[in-house]
Amino acid sequence: MPLKPDLIVKKMELNPKNIVKPGDLVSLNDYPPEYTGAYEKKGQTKRRLKKLHKELLELQGLLYAESQHSLLIILQGMDTCGKDGTIRRVMGGINVQGCDVFNFKVPTADELSRDFLWRAHKAVPSKGKIGIFNRSHYEDVLVVRVHNLVPEQVWSQRYQQINDFEKMLVENGTVVMKFYLHISKDEQKERLESRISDPTKHWKVEASDIRERAYWDNYMQAYEVMLQKCSTDWAPWYIIPANKKWYRNLVVTECIVERLKKLDMKYPEPSIDVTDLTIGD
Amino acid sequence: MPLKPDLIVKKMELNPKNIVKPGDLVSLNDYPPEYTGAYEKKGQTKRRLKKLHKELLELQGLLYAESQHSLLIILQGMDTCGKDGTIRRVMGGINVQGCDVFNFKVPTADELSRDFLWRAHKAVPSKGKIGIFNRSHYEDVLVVRVHNLVPEQVWSQRYQQINDFEKMLVENGTVVMKFYLHISKDEQKERLESRISDPTKHWKVEASDIRERAYWDNYMQAYEVMLQKCSTDWAPWYIIPANKKWYRNLVVTECIVERLKKLDMKYPEPSIDVTDLTIGD
Repeated sequence: MPLKPDLIVKKMELNPKNIVKPGDLVSLNDYPPEYTGAYEKKGQTKRRLKKLHKELLELQGLLYAESQHSLLIILQGMDTCGKDGTIRRVMGGINVQGCDVFNFKVPTADELSRDFLWRAHKAVPSKGKIGIFNRSHYEDVLVVRVHNLVPEQVWSQRYQQINDFEKMLVENGTVVMKFYLHISKDEQKERLESRISDPTKHWKVEASDIRERAYWDNYMQAYEVMLQKCSTDWAPWYIIPANKKWYRNLVVTECIVERLKKLDMKYPEPSIDVTDLTIGD
Repeated sequence: MPLKPDLIVKKMELNPKNIVKPGDLVSLNDYPPEYTGAYEKKGQTKRRLKKLHKELLELQGLLYAESQHSLLIILQGMDTCGKDGTIRRVMGGINVQGCDVFNFKVPTADELSRDFLWRAHKAVPSKGKIGIFNRSHYEDVLVVRVHNLVPEQVWSQRYQQINDFEKMLVENGTVVMKFYLHISKDEQKERLESRISDPTKHWKVEASDIRERAYWDNYMQAYEVMLQKCSTDWAPWYIIPANKKWYRNLVVTECIVERLKKLDMKYPEPSIDVTDLTIGD
C-alpha cells in the first residue's frame, strides 16, 4: 500500500537513483515513465504542491534579495514530454520579474556562425534570477547527433565542452539543474493524437513532430549517452518520470525547492544606516 | 452608497477620465491617489480579481498561439509606488514563458553611447509575448528633466521622438499600454518607513530614495508634462490610483484584460493537414 501523502511530506519524493551519478551507464528502460511514487492520483498531491509553491515563491524572493546566486534550470525531453507544461505549472505562482525563459529553436544563421555554446552563454540568468532553458545546448548532442548535422568528430567533443562550460557557471555562482522529462513512446502517441483532435491545440502539431518520432530509439540512445557523460557533481541530471503530468510537476518543484534551501540564503543588510533615518514630509 | 462588487462586474472599473486624452492638460492634484471606486476594502475585490486572472491567462494563451501581436506594458511612478508589486500580483498567475520583464536601471556606458531609445527598442517583446518595462524610456523625460542630466534642448525633443517610436511599434503589431501608478507623498513616507522597519525589506532602501523625495513637486510637474504630451490615440496613458495596492492591482489587470479582448484573437489553423494524419506506433 502506498504511503499516505501526509506521511511522506518530509521525504524527498524522487528516487535517489533518478539523480544520475557521474559516469553511470543509464538504460532508460529501467526507468518506468509512468512511475508516481507514493501517489495514485493527482488529488493526493495538491496540498503538497501548494506548500511547495509557497516555499518556492519565498526562496525566489530571497534569491532576488541576496543576488549572490542565480538558478539555471534546463529542460530536455522528446516532443510532447511536457517542457512547456512544466514551465507553466512549476513556475505558475512565481514572480515573473525574477524569471527569464529562453526557448532554444532551430539556430539562426547568426547563431550557427559561432560555437554552439555562444547562444546558451548569452542567455544565462543574472544573479538573483531564475533562468529556464526550454531545450538547450544539449540539442547539440541530441538532434545533432541523431541526424549527424555535424561530423561525429565535432559532436563527440561537445560532452566535455558542456561539462567545462557548466562547471565555470557553477564556480561563478550559478546553480545548474537539469531535468530529463521521461515519457513513453505510447504516451507521446496519445498526446499527439489529443492535440490533433483539439482545435485550440492542433496548431501546435508540426510535420517534424511525426517525422522525428520515427527516430525514437536513436534519441533514447543519444539521451542515455548524454546522461552518462554529462551528469556531473556540479550539475547532475535528474530523470523525471513524466507520463503523469501531476507527478512530474510535483517532483520537479520539489527538486528545485530542496536545492534552493541548501543555499542557506539570507536577506542582506541595508546598504545605508537605516536605524536613525528620517524621512521628511 | 458604493455599488456592490457583484453589480459592477461588467462595468469598467477605471474612470474614463483616468485615461488621458491626447493633449489634455493634466493636474495630478485632481486625481485622488486613495480612490477605490465602488470598493471599500480588499476582500470585496477578490472574486473579481480571480476571474480577471483566469481571463488574462486564457488571453495570454491566445496571444501566444496566434503570434500576430505583442503586448508592451510600461510602468512608471515614484519610488515605492508599486511597480514591482504590480508585476508580481497582476502577472501572478501568468505563464512565465510568455512574459519578459525588462528593468530600466541607471544606463550603462554602452547604453549611454547610443540614443536613449536604443535600449528600449532592444527590449520590446516579440510577437505572441507580453513585455513589461519596469521604468522605461520615459525616465529620459523624468529623472533626466528633473536633474537636467542633458540640456533642455535635448530632452524637450524626446516627447515627440517617443510618440513616433511608439507609433511605429503599434503599426507593426505591438499593443502599448502605459500605467502611471499614482501615490501621494504621505503614502510614500509610510511605505519607506515600513520598509526600514522590516528586516526582510530594509535592504531595498537606498539613500537615493530619500534624496529624490525632496524633488517630489518637480517630479509631479515632469509627470504632468509627460502625460499631456505622450498620451496618444495609439498609446494612451492610464493614471492609476495606487495608494491602495489591491485597487491598483484590480484596475491594471482589468485594463489589460479589456484591451486584449478587443484584439479578437483566434487559435490558428494547423500548419499541416491533421484530418487524416496517422501517428505510427
